[in-house]
Amino acid sequence: MLEKGSWLMDLIAKHKARFDAARKACRERFHWSPFPEAPALVENSEALGKAADETFAGQLNKAFELELPGIVDTVGDEISPYTGKPLGITYPRCNPDVLFDAAERALPAWAALTPELRVAILMDVIDALEKQVFLIARAVMHTAGQSPNMSFTGSGVNALDRAIEALVYAYEAMRFTPNTAHWERQFGKATISLGKTYRLVPRGTAVCFACASFPTWNAWPSMMASLATGNPVIVKPHPGSVLPMALTVRCFRDVLAAHGQSPDLVTLQLDTRDEPLGKVLVNHPKTAIIDFTGSAQFGSWVEQNAHPALCFTETAGVNTVVLDSCEDLDAVIRSLATTLCMFSAQMCTSPQNIYLPRQGVREGDRWVPAGEVRQRLADAVYAIASNPRKAAMILATIQSPDTEQLLDQLAAQADVLLPSESYEHPDYPDARTRTPLMLSVNTSQRDLYLGERFGPVSFVIECEDAQDALSQATRDVREVGGLTAFLYSSDEAFIEQAEQAYANAGAQLTINLTGPMPLNFAAAYSDFHVTGLNAAGNASLTELGFVAQRFRITQSRRPSSNMPR
Amino acid sequence: MLEKGSWLMDLIAKHKARFDAARKACRERFHWSPFPEAPALVENSEALGKAADETFAGQLNKAFELELPGIVDTVGDEISPYTGKPLGITYPRCNPDVLFDAAERALPAWAALTPELRVAILMDVIDALEKQVFLIARAVMHTAGQSPNMSFTGSGVNALDRAIEALVYAYEAMRFTPNTAHWERQFGKATISLGKTYRLVPRGTAVCFACASFPTWNAWPSMMASLATGNPVIVKPHPGSVLPMALTVRCFRDVLAAHGQSPDLVTLQLDTRDEPLGKVLVNHPKTAIIDFTGSAQFGSWVEQNAHPALCFTETAGVNTVVLDSCEDLDAVIRSLATTLCMFSAQMCTSPQNIYLPRQGVREGDRWVPAGEVRQRLADAVYAIASNPRKAAMILATIQSPDTEQLLDQLAAQADVLLPSESYEHPDYPDARTRTPLMLSVNTSQRDLYLGERFGPVSFVIECEDAQDALSQATRDVREVGGLTAFLYSSDEAFIEQAEQAYANAGAQLTINLTGPMPLNFAAAYSDFHVTGLNAAGNASLTELGFVAQRFRITQSRRPSSNMPR
Repeated sequence: MLEKGSWLMDLIAKHKARFDAARKACRERFHWSPFPEAPALVENSEALGKAADETFAGQLNKAFELELPGIVDTVGDEISPYTGKPLGITYPRCNPDVLFDAAERALPAWAALTPELRVAILMDVIDALEKQVFLIARAVMHTAGQSPNMSFTGSGVNALDRAIEALVYAYEAMRFTPNTAHWERQFGKATISLGKTYRLVPRGTAVCFACASFPTWNAWPSMMASLATGNPVIVKPHPGSVLPMALTVRCFRDVLAAHGQSPDLVTLQLDTRDEPLGKVLVNHPKTAIIDFTGSAQFGSWVEQNAHPALCFTETAGVNTVVLDSCEDLDAVIRSLATTLCMFSAQMCTSPQNIYLPRQGVREGDRWVPAGEVRQRLADAVYAIASNPRKAAMILATIQSPDTEQLLDQLAAQADVLLPSESYEHPDYPDARTRTPLMLSVNTSQRDLYLGERFGPVSFVIECEDAQDALSQATRDVREVGGLTAFLYSSDEAFIEQAEQAYANAGAQLTINLTGPMPLNFAAAYSDFHVTGLNAAGNASLTELGFVAQRFRITQSRRPSSNMPR
Repeated sequence: MLEKGSWLMDLIAKHKARFDAARKACRERFHWSPFPEAPALVENSEALGKAADETFAGQLNKAFELELPGIVDTVGDEISPYTGKPLGITYPRCNPDVLFDAAERALPAWAALTPELRVAILMDVIDALEKQVFLIARAVMHTAGQSPNMSFTGSGVNALDRAIEALVYAYEAMRFTPNTAHWERQFGKATISLGKTYRLVPRGTAVCFACASFPTWNAWPSMMASLATGNPVIVKPHPGSVLPMALTVRCFRDVLAAHGQSPDLVTLQLDTRDEPLGKVLVNHPKTAIIDFTGSAQFGSWVEQNAHPALCFTETAGVNTVVLDSCEDLDAVIRSLATTLCMFSAQMCTSPQNIYLPRQGVREGDRWVPAGEVRQRLADAVYAIASNPRKAAMILATIQSPDTEQLLDQLAAQADVLLPSESYEHPDYPDARTRTPLMLSVNTSQRDLYLGERFGPVSFVIECEDAQDALSQATRDVREVGGLTAFLYSSDEAFIEQAEQAYANAGAQLTINLTGPMPLNFAAAYSDFHVTGLNAAGNASLTELGFVAQRFRITQSRRPSSNMPR
């Protein structure tokens, strides 16, 4: 009925192998990706990178070309953390009511497609996003402030993988119910035979809030989850990081339109810091679904005020490190230091609170005193921060000037283990940079570290012993939330205890990991991001609970003898 | 690790065939049930019925034996709609805080079991409930007022089927994620190889509100959905229908204890009409999940106030009938009349609003005038209501005295097509009975029929034509909710239009059904109950969205080389 032409079948066939592979990866959760893991592995990467640089440069100080319904005026006040200069790009600002109306009009035809077709069209969007991944990386770099490499990997291909993962889960949830069923039962002496048809009905318009420092990473999977299940999406980027989402929205709209779908299935709602629209969108009577990535404070308001809309949040909390014992402290410290430095800890998965037993850390069968552990950790961070090439690659830049202020305030309130300074970026002399601040505290200073302190700051917290460290850490996570956790211990009984304690607290635990993988690396198809068990978010990307409520099932049933031929 | 003894393996094996069959039925949605469909089909049904009568009689005017933590005093003011006399059963009333604390203590050991084991123990509960199904039917009869037959079928075996269905969905959702995974990826020249463990963590204590007129039917699947996913359940029955849920809770507790589990995984919280505890339970800081079946008014309050608890509601709305055309009007009218009479329309699926075109209904190629359709429908209802044997079997009794008042009020406000009177029950002369009230209205009297009017009342609403009938009906559903809908039409284009309109409105549609099956019969494993798309409830029993958020997934990951042997 719906698959009218062969191009639709071709479209499904085109993406089948990749999508099937993704489905298998999600079920078994091994490593898989159809994308190159680093820009250097892309064919013609230099040419593509240069072309992206040119396109990006050509976009500066211009109006961003994006057709949208209900345009009221234009806004735009992004500043590159690399150049310190305004991007000068202006974007259309729309009347939200018009966007909701347009989304509502676009919904029925999109909802009438089969899940296979919607997914195939969205897999075409994935292809289109991949073609622009160098350009999107430049946009992320000059808004979020990520390094060129992370912009490509984390905000590009890894985000694409997570988008496919969301499509897989949406598809599995939709396909759990058959299209039709034959049902037959005796009632007394009569046989009642019914044909049943099940329809998947989308909830309605979704609003997707993207954050400033890592916009595509949660927004792409959230958008895909809503769209695959038939819901239009209004994207609300952070005013400081519009360009990556504007490129995203344009890409979705182009592909949708090319396939004869209404581009208004995906629109962009901008606001400004002075005239924020977040609450208007959350309270809008036509908002049916909200995906929110951002601050814990506003996220909590969203959760409390979302009803009757469905609400999926990913905010922040304290990501904790518990140090007990290890075989090779140097390896531990190298891994920890690198991860503390990674994108200046402006990731929701970055560790912040390091719980260190007063007695120190046992390495093999000798104790390394706490003071020495602290110092070697600070030295290792300093080794990165003091080398501009390394710093540029790993620390990158600081997204928001607020972060600089926060670092200065915190430094005044505790023993400074490593001061934060700006470093000179080798390629961008005007870049906003800060080296990591490390503070040495004890548990009486809990107010200082209880909660996310956004940016390159970590607290080394003196604890009674390993048990106390674990219990402090998991208590802090239970109280204010936390996404990731890291444990180093050679004691199997202690590890088992920590696994259970962190499971109860709802943080995803990484144990005894050393080596070149960033400790907080979250692998699509394999690692669940956020548990929904604590204040750091009520959703988990991506599992069935993230998708199953985005559509509903209606049915009609009818005597088989009365069915149309 | 968890399957310590062979009895556990045996328990899983014992239930495997039945559970696998239920899984297949849920995926394909054909008719299936392991239970006899009527009491007469049970072996020794007469002896079992008599034994249940004796047990029930022996229970009257006594304290109900049920051990619970935190008992404060006893309450109980049930009145049998059949005898008009108090049951005289007193039940322990507990301190809610003590129940929540007991549930919290019971959770960890239950959560530590594998999903297979929890499901197997709960399948044992199903067996135990089945053994008591005649007794539970007596309890339903003398609290909810259902007929003996419906008490056995609807509140007994069909509710058991729905409980199994909920177990299946919970199991499928839990088993979508593997216990472990092996993940391996290159980072530069190094290979990082991680072993990952995924844990399913229950949300916390669930509160299950059961309704007065059909307590087991939604409560059993809700309880199973929470328990299978690891959450304890506090059951809060309606003060008027305690006994079915008290028997239920005792049965769960006995089976849990027999398998070495804490019986406090399932407890009973009573309240009284004068001192209701509903809001206390919804607002309790330890409430993690709420399942609510009951009035639309309190249900709406629950939805608005449940945060941060998960909330699944099934309330009420207007169930609509649209009459356009048919081949055999007598058959249509027989089916409609029987369904309007069934349990005096005290079911959330009972039709209430009949939208009748002014021109009448086309039968074959002749038009039957609206006045004649109204009259024949009223006559058909009267034929049932005026025959005490039939009335006793089909109408049964009226659960609440409030319903009688409502009927009298409504009768004074519109043209009475069929007046409501009490009928003399052949076996219970003091039974609270009322024959169905039928009112003839037009759309200017919308206030009268816009919303559920609980009890045996229907409105025949004069509409312009079939298009107007459909548009009025679906508009009413969109505005105030609705669970079921019924359409009679010989026009395929109109049927298709109605299917889409009701899908958008979120009511489950039955088309052109005649014959002995009650029109509103909802088959476990096949029919979805409630869509979640309108005000008649935000949940749907049973699909993945009903279960997937009741647990969360946490993970730990660790270098494969560092895994314990």
